[in-house]
Amino acid sequence: MNICKFNETVEKWDVFEVEVPGKSDGNPFTDYTIRGTFRGKEETRTVDGFYDGDGVYRVRFMPSFEGEYTFTVEGSFSEEKHSGTFQAVEPSPDNHGMVRVSHTYHFAYEDGTPYYSIGTTCYVWELQAEELQKKTLETLKDSAFNKIRFCIFPKHYDYNLGEPISYPYEGTPMDSSVLTKENFKEYDGCPEGNHFDYKRFNVKHFQHIDDCIRKLMELGIQADLIVMHPYDRWGFSEMSPECDDLYWKYLIARVGAFRNVWWALANEYDLFPKKTLEDWERYARIICEKDVYSHLRSIHNCRPFYDHSRPWITHCSIQRQDLYKGAELVNEWRERYRKPIVLDEIAYEGNIQHGWGNISGQEMVRRFWEAFCRGGYPGHGETYMNKDDILWWSHGGELHGESPERFKFMKKIMDETPAPGLRPMAGEWDEVAAEVDESVPSHKYYLFYYSFMRPSFRDYYFDDETEYEVEVIDTWNMTIENQGIHKGKFRVQLPGREYMAVRIRGVK
Amino acid sequence: MNICKFNETVEKWDVFEVEVPGKSDGNPFTDYTIRGTFRGKEETRTVDGFYDGDGVYRVRFMPSFEGEYTFTVEGSFSEEKHSGTFQAVEPSPDNHGMVRVSHTYHFAYEDGTPYYSIGTTCYVWELQAEELQKKTLETLKDSAFNKIRFCIFPKHYDYNLGEPISYPYEGTPMDSSVLTKENFKEYDGCPEGNHFDYKRFNVKHFQHIDDCIRKLMELGIQADLIVMHPYDRWGFSEMSPECDDLYWKYLIARVGAFRNVWWALANEYDLFPKKTLEDWERYARIICEKDVYSHLRSIHNCRPFYDHSRPWITHCSIQRQDLYKGAELVNEWRERYRKPIVLDEIAYEGNIQHGWGNISGQEMVRRFWEAFCRGGYPGHGETYMNKDDILWWSHGGELHGESPERFKFMKKIMDETPAPGLRPMAGEWDEVAAEVDESVPSHKYYLFYYSFMRPSFRDYYFDDETEYEVEVIDTWNMTIENQGIHKGKFRVQLPGREYMAVRIRGVK
Repeated sequence: MNICKFNETVEKWDVFEVEVPGKSDGNPFTDYTIRGTFRGKEETRTVDGFYDGDGVYRVRFMPSFEGEYTFTVEGSFSEEKHSGTFQAVEPSPDNHGMVRVSHTYHFAYEDGTPYYSIGTTCYVWELQAEELQKKTLETLKDSAFNKIRFCIFPKHYDYNLGEPISYPYEGTPMDSSVLTKENFKEYDGCPEGNHFDYKRFNVKHFQHIDDCIRKLMELGIQADLIVMHPYDRWGFSEMSPECDDLYWKYLIARVGAFRNVWWALANEYDLFPKKTLEDWERYARIICEKDVYSHLRSIHNCRPFYDHSRPWITHCSIQRQDLYKGAELVNEWRERYRKPIVLDEIAYEGNIQHGWGNISGQEMVRRFWEAFCRGGYPGHGETYMNKDDILWWSHGGELHGESPERFKFMKKIMDETPAPGLRPMAGEWDEVAAEVDESVPSHKYYLFYYSFMRPSFRDYYFDDETEYEVEVIDTWNMTIENQGIHKGKFRVQLPGREYMAVRIRGVK
Repeated sequence: MNICKFNETVEKWDVFEVEVPGKSDGNPFTDYTIRGTFRGKEETRTVDGFYDGDGVYRVRFMPSFEGEYTFTVEGSFSEEKHSGTFQAVEPSPDNHGMVRVSHTYHFAYEDGTPYYSIGTTCYVWELQAEELQKKTLETLKDSAFNKIRFCIFPKHYDYNLGEPISYPYEGTPMDSSVLTKENFKEYDGCPEGNHFDYKRFNVKHFQHIDDCIRKLMELGIQADLIVMHPYDRWGFSEMSPECDDLYWKYLIARVGAFRNVWWALANEYDLFPKKTLEDWERYARIICEKDVYSHLRSIHNCRPFYDHSRPWITHCSIQRQDLYKGAELVNEWRERYRKPIVLDEIAYEGNIQHGWGNISGQEMVRRFWEAFCRGGYPGHGETYMNKDDILWWSHGGELHGESPERFKFMKKIMDETPAPGLRPMAGEWDEVAAEVDESVPSHKYYLFYYSFMRPSFRDYYFDDETEYEVEVIDTWNMTIENQGIHKGKFRVQLPGREYMAVRIRGVK
């Protein structure tokens, strides 16, 4: 028995990592096992470790409680067993733990802080040149976004013909120099010329993913990991079930201890030519078994929704199914699924040829407010044409649109919402009316959104006793006009412009 | 027998009127009958006449053929019979006859000229002060509108508290001086204080209606007569079946011979508290029996549609049921009803407090293009706040919005559409694609509309042989950019702005 003290202390909800040497002959990814058992006063957890190349194995653990932990690491990877102790200490102010479902339709961090999700998508930002990655992180730092969707595997698609900085597997890709924008096509399957060993991970690729997740964590951003996706020319979307399962287990062992990880089983599960529902259900079983922390789990559609009522799905990750209505259906989806509604594809602000990628900033912001005021959580993306073909949606970089500035304004309003968040209430037919989503009403907090409608005034009545403070919010011009205290039945003057909201809060 | 030559000649599709003296004792509206029979080489028609006050009766007839007609007028209204002859002559260039359904989904005048409907609504424009009526007619003259919806009965509603210039019945109304904007309410029934005799028409009211229909005819505008509506404080919406039927027969006798009349049985049939489906079906039977010309017939909803598949309904007069989608559903409604789809309430451009009356000019124009490119026919209305409370929607007057100018531009494009009009074709999911609605394709005429989407380019392919002229249409800025001749697979550059259309016409 090799007894060791690694890091002496680690914050609760941070990563405690055990690094140990082990066998590197054969295929260490398949031939050997490694697992760690972590014991504290309040919990005992056993997790898989993983091979990280060069004869190094790692086991990562996220303590959910403060106090002393002991651990043992064992498996066929080594003749030796390892054990030790560490202290889990009070988290620093920015460490709120994992995000979990709260009050059926919402999210909160493990320490109880509400998490009002406002996401973006940059499918393969982390597989771009280093300079561009840096720019992406800078942009994110200066944004309202607290969640980002991205893929572990590289992406092949229109505007995505370049090679990634690394591949998830050992091997060599097909010659992509023949690909041009003009002859772009989607590959149905693994084209000739790819030579990857789907049982040997490229640890550099995954070390980089670790690093990116950590950087996002530092920015307070959830890493909504798209573990599988169909936009592929390397065969990663059509591996055997054995290789798929190996991949899932490897990934969970590597990144499951990062508190900001969410599992997005797929981008557009329904576009994989060779995967069946049974495959997705099998991956879900693997996650439920191997992810001892129960990170958030979702699966995202192109056309038909996955059955979001499946018990393993923690929240609905939705791509709108209709060209015209999406965010407007949040109420219906809440009622149908009784889970948080996250609009992970609401269409992208931009001007490319595709209808999913060319809405205006106004329309994007409108959809965000519709979603939030209906008790859902919106997500952004951006696809502006650009001579370098660097589109935020896939590559990250800089934002060029008009919506992100408005999200910062919106986020402030979101953050002022009493926990656990908003729910739609029965308002007039021509407004989106929201109140706090609590079973016993304790907050007199109402938010009305008028979308593309342009009323010059609206009348309100709640009760005869309460004094209400009224604010008129211009969601596009980012102004808040305080219209003072009102009581009983009252009228609020509005400017007859689009995109107005009215916030009404009981003050006495 | 009293033999007379009245007007010696009348245009085909114009009104030939016989004026005869008759009994005025008792109640001439109910106690006496009058009918005329008109015989030409190609048709024999018997129509009811009507009492027009001061001992005068009239019978009106619209000849559908050229040539000599003889007629007789008889009934209990007089001991005498009247007869005579007249010549129906070739119509003048602006007289195309009645509008009829053409090719299932479209309209055409009786002479075969396509009629591409582009309507507006001014519910009671004709019951306003004379000066305002004149202004309305001037505005209409300078507009793209070729149809107007308006009511025979006055209207009581928000912004509609004033008295009409006349009432349809003899009697006196309730005291309306007590009504204010603040205490406005809808009356469910006939409030106290009204004393009308629902069996004695006020002929001055109807003479004025005749006059208005004639003035619209001169402007080439269809009079879509809303015969019944629920926004009432005088009891006109809750008369007995006997009085309702008397009203229908009187109105048909009076105005049925005007070629520009359409019968809109109701505005919002479903809001009448006391009318049943059987009532509406009974009115329909009366029209089908008494209107020998078969003017267009429709019935308009507030919430649920009337069953537009009823055989007496010539076209669907639709108020959108959804806040967000309306014009976008024209394809579905075409398939469901196989009749022309007329969007008589698509929401109004304006800024009043109600969601049906505060959309922007852009949104209005967008809905118009959506409707037209999907093979339907849009209708406009306007509700801008104004210190005199004169809103186009109800009172007429002047237009203040940004959409009407764009309708003129659109109307030019509409008028260039080959007969019988457009139908939706299978395009991409993110465009509205239209072609000519003909069973054997003879026109290579395609119109693509991009709505709120902002593509920077689009690719098209029809065939390898034809040369196509491509025009990029900015529906908001009202420009047409000719992008020359293309063949085979080709790309069209677009400005990445909203509200663009592309027209592609085969030229060789």
